Amino acid sequence: MSYKNFPMVSKVVFGRGSFNQLGDILSPKRLNVKAPFIYIVDDVFQGNSWLTSRIPLSYDDKIYYISANEEPKTSQVDELVEEIILTYKALPSGIIGIGGGTIMDLAKAISIMLTNEGESKEYQGWDLVKKPAIYHVGIPTISGTGAEVSRTTILTGPHRKLGINSDFTPFDQVVLDPELTKDVPKDQWFYTGMDCYVHCIESLNGTYLNSFSQSYGEKALELCKEIFLEDTLSKDESNDKLMMASWHGGMSIAYSQVGVAHAMSYGLGYLLGVKHGVGNCIVFEHLEEYYPEGVAMYKVMREKHNITIPKGICSNLSDKEFDIMIDVALSLEPLWENALGKHWKKTITRDKLKELYLKM
Amino acid sequence: MSYKNFPMVSKVVFGRGSFNQLGDILSPKRLNVKAPFIYIVDDVFQGNSWLTSRIPLSYDDKIYYISANEEPKTSQVDELVEEIILTYKALPSGIIGIGGGTIMDLAKAISIMLTNEGESKEYQGWDLVKKPAIYHVGIPTISGTGAEVSRTTILTGPHRKLGINSDFTPFDQVVLDPELTKDVPKDQWFYTGMDCYVHCIESLNGTYLNSFSQSYGEKALELCKEIFLEDTLSKDESNDKLMMASWHGGMSIAYSQVGVAHAMSYGLGYLLGVKHGVGNCIVFEHLEEYYPEGVAMYKVMREKHNITIPKGICSNLSDKEFDIMIDVALSLEPLWENALGKHWKKTITRDKLKELYLKM
Repeated sequence: MSYKNFPMVSKVVFGRGSFNQLGDILSPKRLNVKAPFIYIVDDVFQGNSWLTSRIPLSYDDKIYYISANEEPKTSQVDELVEEIILTYKALPSGIIGIGGGTIMDLAKAISIMLTNEGESKEYQGWDLVKKPAIYHVGIPTISGTGAEVSRTTILTGPHRKLGINSDFTPFDQVVLDPELTKDVPKDQWFYTGMDCYVHCIESLNGTYLNSFSQSYGEKALELCKEIFLEDTLSKDESNDKLMMASWHGGMSIAYSQVGVAHAMSYGLGYLLGVKHGVGNCIVFEHLEEYYPEGVAMYKVMREKHNITIPKGICSNLSDKEFDIMIDVALSLEPLWENALGKHWKKTITRDKLKELYLKM
Repeated sequence: MSYKNFPMVSKVVFGRGSFNQLGDILSPKRLNVKAPFIYIVDDVFQGNSWLTSRIPLSYDDKIYYISANEEPKTSQVDELVEEIILTYKALPSGIIGIGGGTIMDLAKAISIMLTNEGESKEYQGWDLVKKPAIYHVGIPTISGTGAEVSRTTILTGPHRKLGINSDFTPFDQVVLDPELTKDVPKDQWFYTGMDCYVHCIESLNGTYLNSFSQSYGEKALELCKEIFLEDTLSKDESNDKLMMASWHGGMSIAYSQVGVAHAMSYGLGYLLGVKHGVGNCIVFEHLEEYYPEGVAMYKVMREKHNITIPKGICSNLSDKEFDIMIDVALSLEPLWENALGKHWKKTITRDKLKELYLKM
């Protein structure tokens, strides 16, 4: 048996207002005046000077505002990489992602593709990246995805929704400033928080579980319960703790694997473009069979916060569309094996998945 | 206000038997055939072929067996560094520490001093190291110290007991194989485990606490309670969990600070050579005033496991000796400030410390 040798984030700073330290963090990393820092920033912050005025810009540094309304795509990565290469005379000094999972995954993928030849779709899979990425920094502005600690960057490509999993993927630097999450809309807060909750349930109930993942998963789950079920925390405390829950939940799955909800959510994401957070919720509603306690607790949380989950999104799909979605879900073999063990193919048939998708 | 930018361990592997992967982990790191891997191994393993036969040796690789009966010294680091430099034609490819906190701290310090000029005592303090260390690997064989994740290496120098705290100190690779802890004697298991417990109490009750340290400290404390107070775990499960408790406890203090017990234990260590684990226990017995709940729970643990703690170790000391011990303890200002706030000097007087030491 061989165990994963997991690459960790190199440096992390945590604290309210730690975003103000970004200039001090980056300046020793500038290679030369022609090698800019490129900021990939969620376009919800465009015109928000509270945040943007604190992004340190010198020389040819540039901000790209990117919409996170759609899941990140391999074609989007390739276009941004081409634009950066054509615009500057030198490779960037660093790529800084400021946003949620979509933006952080784009920043990771761009930093990899600036030094690796070809198209990003060629690197979807495990350990296909050959050269170290450009220095890259992750600054989450919404909590739950775990993208800040993972060794993957989930992209929708022409053929599949799959991550670029490699030792070069994790961030060189993460800035955890919970103050940046203060204006997240309530439904987004819930959907993305539930990504963390689902990570914990899938990790703790998986066959790949070990004491390393268990300790992280248990702590993240405890924090989720405190945040989403209890009324003891101030909003600031709650945001602080959700940022740590996301971190620990990410570490838990990073060293084990996700499960049924993620496999099926990737299918929805690939075919219908459903965003990952809400996609997890749509799927998780119907997984009592696999995670009975986890789903029951999720429903209490959803009701407590009066959140609406879209329904009937699969009701008008053709057989061909179901086939595409089922193909994507079934291709994620490690997720199913983690959830149900080596013999998962005995119970997870195409008919079973169609039956589940039809409920959603 | 400025927050710490904490450097993490680069890569970690966890699992029973993961020690067998050491060869695969190291081979890509060999610089050339003249650049050996140097193993710093606790001499309790000398002649123990169960462990030593699995240490991968090629070319000029060498094992140094080192006693951990005494706390690590700056002079010891300097001697080992000189011997390595005189023996080999090239700098080593890597330094691998296999043992407890003493051995791991020696490995960290040697890897730093092979690339930084002068004597190791010159680097005791904060951020005095200028050049990156040699690639270094930590493999704990006893759990609790947190040395596997810290950015320090605590050394007894001619003038003080103080760490080399730097961004270059943390390990490039940690191998967490709980099987390696199976033969730890019961009293050592308890003393070193209590180092972790005390880390949690000092971190969670400190004024430097933040949500980052809190989440790690709470998880480590929970694991300590399960291990030392309950009877639900098998020996293997207990050893697995204590290895993770040490890791999380280390992360908790790494991002905050220790407190009263550590400050006073360093005094005992410097003057009397008391080992750190038992030193913490000797001190902690008498700190009800500062950590009432933590000390009460510690005493339940000590009684449950029928552990004897040395007494009266300060009863025959001269005034001069008390002064030395008190000087060392008082010099650790961040520890006192974390424990008691900015105005700690109002209550922590030389007389107060002497009164406490006299009880021990």
